[in-house]
Amino acid sequence: MILTVTPNPALDLTWRVDRLTPGATHRADAGAARSGGKGINVARVAHAQGASVLALTTAGGRTGVAFVADLGASGVPHRLVQVAAPTRQTVALVDEALGDTTIVNERGENPTDAEWAALFGEVVDALPSARVLVISGSLPPGAPGSFVPLLIGTAADAGVPVIVDTSGPALLRAADAGASVLKPNAAELVEATGIADPVEGARALLARGAGLVLLSRGAEGMLAVTAETVTHARLDAPLAGNPTGAGDAAVAACAALYADGVRDTETVLRRATAWSAAAVTMPLAGEISDDWSALEQRLVVTSTPREERP
Amino acid sequence: MILTVTPNPALDLTWRVDRLTPGATHRADAGAARSGGKGINVARVAHAQGASVLALTTAGGRTGVAFVADLGASGVPHRLVQVAAPTRQTVALVDEALGDTTIVNERGENPTDAEWAALFGEVVDALPSARVLVISGSLPPGAPGSFVPLLIGTAADAGVPVIVDTSGPALLRAADAGASVLKPNAAELVEATGIADPVEGARALLARGAGLVLLSRGAEGMLAVTAETVTHARLDAPLAGNPTGAGDAAVAACAALYADGVRDTETVLRRATAWSAAAVTMPLAGEISDDWSALEQRLVVTSTPREERP
Repeated sequence: MILTVTPNPALDLTWRVDRLTPGATHRADAGAARSGGKGINVARVAHAQGASVLALTTAGGRTGVAFVADLGASGVPHRLVQVAAPTRQTVALVDEALGDTTIVNERGENPTDAEWAALFGEVVDALPSARVLVISGSLPPGAPGSFVPLLIGTAADAGVPVIVDTSGPALLRAADAGASVLKPNAAELVEATGIADPVEGARALLARGAGLVLLSRGAEGMLAVTAETVTHARLDAPLAGNPTGAGDAAVAACAALYADGVRDTETVLRRATAWSAAAVTMPLAGEISDDWSALEQRLVVTSTPREERP
Repeated sequence: MILTVTPNPALDLTWRVDRLTPGATHRADAGAARSGGKGINVARVAHAQGASVLALTTAGGRTGVAFVADLGASGVPHRLVQVAAPTRQTVALVDEALGDTTIVNERGENPTDAEWAALFGEVVDALPSARVLVISGSLPPGAPGSFVPLLIGTAADAGVPVIVDTSGPALLRAADAGASVLKPNAAELVEATGIADPVEGARALLARGAGLVLLSRGAEGMLAVTAETVTHARLDAPLAGNPTGAGDAAVAACAALYADGVRDTETVLRRATAWSAAAVTMPLAGEISDDWSALEQRLVVTSTPREERP
């Protein structure tokens, strides 16, 4: 079973407008409200691809009620810790003319210490059945810095590998704690490590203790960086679509393989890149198209031993 | 008592961002959710200024629950018809750097015939206690064209004057039905009448049957157009601020005077312009600043008999 933890879930609101003009008034049909947060999206993708999953997160307030209702309707197995603070919202305004999306993400409110402990307890309860633990997304401002390292340490004690997709100081802490896989994008890597070259930044995370860094590069595909090699997978031609949720699909692919005991770096990289590409062609985060194996066939993969880099 | 009817209420959501950039991702603190719709804003302003009010509208779905909770907390007396369709939402993204606001208004879902009848019934029940009826805001797509004229006719039978602030065909129907006061802005007048000159458009509404047209012109103040004269009120110097809700404050001023039996056109125009200006200095629609009487002192009022217009 793939166990996902979402420390900062969100109710994702989406409205479509003809053409978004700052300062103007627009008319729109009723917006959509969907349970989100990166760990929820990972669970959705893995569940839709037939993997056994359990999504753990929090919910609170009126927005939490809508979050719970949508998550229940999704069919994704989940367990929720009730919290006092309302579940945060995100706003996406989709410009139908240009096809781009303007996003406003609420930062989220920090659960109480007791609520964090309850979420931690849910992970501890579920770990014996887990083949892999995924910790995905941001943490609310003020979140205890120990939360991610404690989860990683507890999973390691239970022999469960941990995949982490987060940013900022939590990304460094995850590396220090020995996360099996980290999946930053280039901007997150540069911001967290202060190193301008993302591949060197990925190596810094490996030196801190991470086992593998999957570095997502948008239309340029994905890099798998280990102490020995840098492997690059990309499509033979770029895809048009919506990149929101592409990273979550990559994490879902990695988690599905890890849950099956697959650790081969190139296999993981290819599947992660293919699912990521298959997410770009879908309108909503948390979904991938069924033609992902055709996309996997189209990948161009190159590997460079460390010594050969200039 | 001022009776307001809001045929298309909304839960108004507001988020503040540093600088709104289309296509970009932004961070924001938790958004605000407030019960809105023009008639609700009118009732808020009049209630805050000490007038006796009753706000009638509909509520439905999860958004309706939030709408009801906020309206209850506001202290504005109200009666609600429960409807099956969820209360629509509006989205306002406030650019803190530029100070301007990008708005997305859901069109709203049309209540059933039985729900329209229930709302109509609430008006009939309340009319004996009403000194003035206000019908404010848009109608959802598909709304019965007879709703506004029937309300105006019923109020007229009860000897209650009616102020209407709407747009499109409903504005023409309100004129045909003999509304006491209409309050379009210039764009709404041009769009509804097809006449390029707003003052001529206002005269067309008078010819159809309206008693008085208050034509709001933003920073240029307001015009009161009757069959005999055009009276113009404006501040001696422009005000900086948020124009959202300025028209609702003007309607509230007009309603408060009509409820007190005041019909003098210049008195109504001055009060409406002053409350409108006092709304511009407030961050939220449905509120006016306490210094409105100082603003009223600063108005420059000019009157032109019809014959003198070139």
